[in-house]
Amino acid sequence: MQHPKPEQFHIMTVLENDTFIRALLKQPVDYTPVWMMRQAGRYLPEYRKVRAQAGSFLNLCTNPELACEVTLQPLRRFDFDAAILFSDILTIPDAMGLGLYFSENEGPKFKNPVKTAADIKKLPIPDPMTDLHYVIDAVRLIRKTLQGRVPLIGFSGSPWTLATYMLEGGSSKSFQKVKGLMYEQPELLHIMLDKLAQSVASYLNAQIEAGAQAVMLFDTWGGMLTSEDYVEFSLYYAKQVRALLKTDVAGRRIPAILFTKGGGLWLEAMTDAGYDALGLDWQTDIRKARARVGDQVALQGNMDPVALYAQPEIIADKVKAILHKYGAGSGHVFNLGHGILPDINPDHVKAMVDAVHQYSPAYHK
Amino acid sequence: MQHPKPEQFHIMTVLENDTFIRALLKQPVDYTPVWMMRQAGRYLPEYRKVRAQAGSFLNLCTNPELACEVTLQPLRRFDFDAAILFSDILTIPDAMGLGLYFSENEGPKFKNPVKTAADIKKLPIPDPMTDLHYVIDAVRLIRKTLQGRVPLIGFSGSPWTLATYMLEGGSSKSFQKVKGLMYEQPELLHIMLDKLAQSVASYLNAQIEAGAQAVMLFDTWGGMLTSEDYVEFSLYYAKQVRALLKTDVAGRRIPAILFTKGGGLWLEAMTDAGYDALGLDWQTDIRKARARVGDQVALQGNMDPVALYAQPEIIADKVKAILHKYGAGSGHVFNLGHGILPDINPDHVKAMVDAVHQYSPAYHK
Repeated sequence: MQHPKPEQFHIMTVLENDTFIRALLKQPVDYTPVWMMRQAGRYLPEYRKVRAQAGSFLNLCTNPELACEVTLQPLRRFDFDAAILFSDILTIPDAMGLGLYFSENEGPKFKNPVKTAADIKKLPIPDPMTDLHYVIDAVRLIRKTLQGRVPLIGFSGSPWTLATYMLEGGSSKSFQKVKGLMYEQPELLHIMLDKLAQSVASYLNAQIEAGAQAVMLFDTWGGMLTSEDYVEFSLYYAKQVRALLKTDVAGRRIPAILFTKGGGLWLEAMTDAGYDALGLDWQTDIRKARARVGDQVALQGNMDPVALYAQPEIIADKVKAILHKYGAGSGHVFNLGHGILPDINPDHVKAMVDAVHQYSPAYHK
Repeated sequence: MQHPKPEQFHIMTVLENDTFIRALLKQPVDYTPVWMMRQAGRYLPEYRKVRAQAGSFLNLCTNPELACEVTLQPLRRFDFDAAILFSDILTIPDAMGLGLYFSENEGPKFKNPVKTAADIKKLPIPDPMTDLHYVIDAVRLIRKTLQGRVPLIGFSGSPWTLATYMLEGGSSKSFQKVKGLMYEQPELLHIMLDKLAQSVASYLNAQIEAGAQAVMLFDTWGGMLTSEDYVEFSLYYAKQVRALLKTDVAGRRIPAILFTKGGGLWLEAMTDAGYDALGLDWQTDIRKARARVGDQVALQGNMDPVALYAQPEIIADKVKAILHKYGAGSGHVFNLGHGILPDINPDHVKAMVDAVHQYSPAYHK
C-alpha cells in the first residue's frame, strides 16, 4: 500500500463530528450545531496570553503555530461543533502590497491605500501558496492537530468589504471614498472588485486544498449599500467567488456560507448566489428568514452578541427562543449575529453552547 | 373684530406651500416635496458662522433667535418644501436633569447618566413650557418668521433612542448597558420608556401648540435591536407617543413621521403604529417598501447621504432613480436616508433639490 502524501492523509480523516457540515447541507442531524464568530479571541484569557507572547496581532496571524494554538483554545473549553481558522479578513490586501498594520484603538490600517486608477490597475492577484503561505500553513497545521474532531472553517473577507478597507485606508463610518468611486467611476471599482473576487476565490481554494472543510465569506460592510448597489457591487462578486470555488474534495461537499451584516432585507437575492448557507445578523427574524429562503439554503445565526452579558439562565432562554423560531428540521447552525464582544465572561459562552446542545435535539426527531 | 392672540394668529396663517403636508397625507400634489435631515447644519458656511458666534452647540440650541436663524438658513439657499426646527434630540433627558454636554469628537454625553433603579424611579416628566421653554420659544419664533412660506416640522428622539443615550451616558457601539437592563430587568426599562413616551408626547404636543405643522420621531437606534425587542422596546412606545399626540389644530391635520434607522425589515409592523408616514434609510428599496406598506402610510426618503459627494449630474440621476422607484401618485416626500454629512458641497444639495422639483411633476399628472 502506498502512503498518501501528508495533505491527502488529513484530508481523508473521517470526521468524528460532522453535524456542522450536515446542517449546512440540510441533511438530518441529531442536534443543532453551534460555533461562534470570533470564538478564538480576546474574551479568552488564554488567548490574551498568547497574544501578549506574540507581541502583536499581526505576529499572531502570521505565525502558523500560534494561529493554530488560538484556533484550538475555544474547543478545549466549549463543546463547539466547528473550528474556524484564526486569521484576519485583510490578509489579501496585505498580500497585494498595501501594508496592513493595526493602530491602537483605531483598528486595521493600510500604509498604502488604493488612491488612483493606476493603483487599481497595478493591483496583483496574490498567489496564496507563496504570498499567503502563513495562512495555508496554519490551515494544514490546524487540520492535522484537530484530528477530525470537528470540521475546520476557512474564511475570507468579501470583495466589497476588502475594497472598502483598501480605498478608505482602514475602517470608515461613511465609506466616502469607496462610494465616491462607486458613484463617479463605477467601471474602475468593478475592475478592482473583479481582481478581488479572483484573489478571494484562489485564497479560499488554497485553504480548501490545505484542509478547510467549509468556507465562509464575511461581507461585513455590504449592509451599508443601497439595495441596488448591494446587488451590483457586493453580491455579484460574492457570486463570482462562489462560482470559482471547489465544491468537492475527495467526494465530500465543501459547503460555503455567505454572511452580509445588515443584509436581512436582501435574503431572497442572496439565496441565488450559490451558497449553501446564509449567515444572519441578530436584527433578522430567523423564522421569517426561513420562510423567505425556503429550502434553498441553510441559515446560520443569530443571537444578539450583547445577550451574552446577561445571566446564564437568560442566555438559555434566548437560545431556546431562537431554536423555537427556526423550528423543526435540519438547516440551522447556531451562532451569534456578529462576533463575540471582547469582555464577555467565558462562562456565559458555555451557557449558550450547552443550551443549544440541551434544547435542540427536540427539533431533530 | 377681535385680534387673535399671537400664537393663534400664526397658527392660522395660510400655508403658501403645503405640498409637504399634502404628500404626507397622500393627497394629490403637483410635485414631490423635498427636505433634508440636518438641513440646518455644518455643511453650510453661514451655519458655521452662527455656531462660532454662539460659542457652543448647546448655546445655539438654547437660544431661540439663533435656533430660528439657522433653521431658516437652508431655506434662503434651497427651494426646500419644509423647515425643521433646529434642536438636539437629547433635550428631554437634559430637562430630566441628566446634564447634557458635548465633548469634542465624542458627541453627546451626560454628566449624570441613569445608573440605578432609583435613578429611573426618580426621573421626572418635564413640563415643556418651563423646562424646555427655549425649544417652544424657538418654534414660535420660527413659525412667525416663516410667515407661512413652508410648513415647520417639530421633532423628538424616540423613547428607545433617548433611553440608549441616558443609560450609556452618550453614544455607544454595542449598547451594552441599555441592552443589559433590557435582558436582565426589562420591567425597569419599561418604567423608564413609559416615562419617556409621556415626556416625548408632551414635548411634541407643546411644539404643535407653538406652531409645528408636522412632527417626526427619530428612532436612531431602533435598528440595533432584534425584531422582537424592536417591537417590545421601541415600536410599542412610538405607538404610545402617537396615541397621545394632537392630530388636528384648527381643523388641520398634523401629520407624524416615524423614522427608524435600520428598520427596513419591520415596515409592516411600523405601519400599525398610527403614523402618517415612515422614514426610510437608504438601504431600503423604496419600490418594495411602497408595495409592502400599501396605502397605509406615506414614505419619506431615501437617497444615500454619501451620494451627495458625487457630481451634480450623478446626483440628478440618483434622484430620478428614486422618483422612478416610488412611481406615480402622492405619498412620497423626498429626503436623504440619514442626515446630510458635514462636508458636503452646498451646490450638490441644490442639484438634488432642483432635480426633485424638475423630474417629479411627471409622477403627479
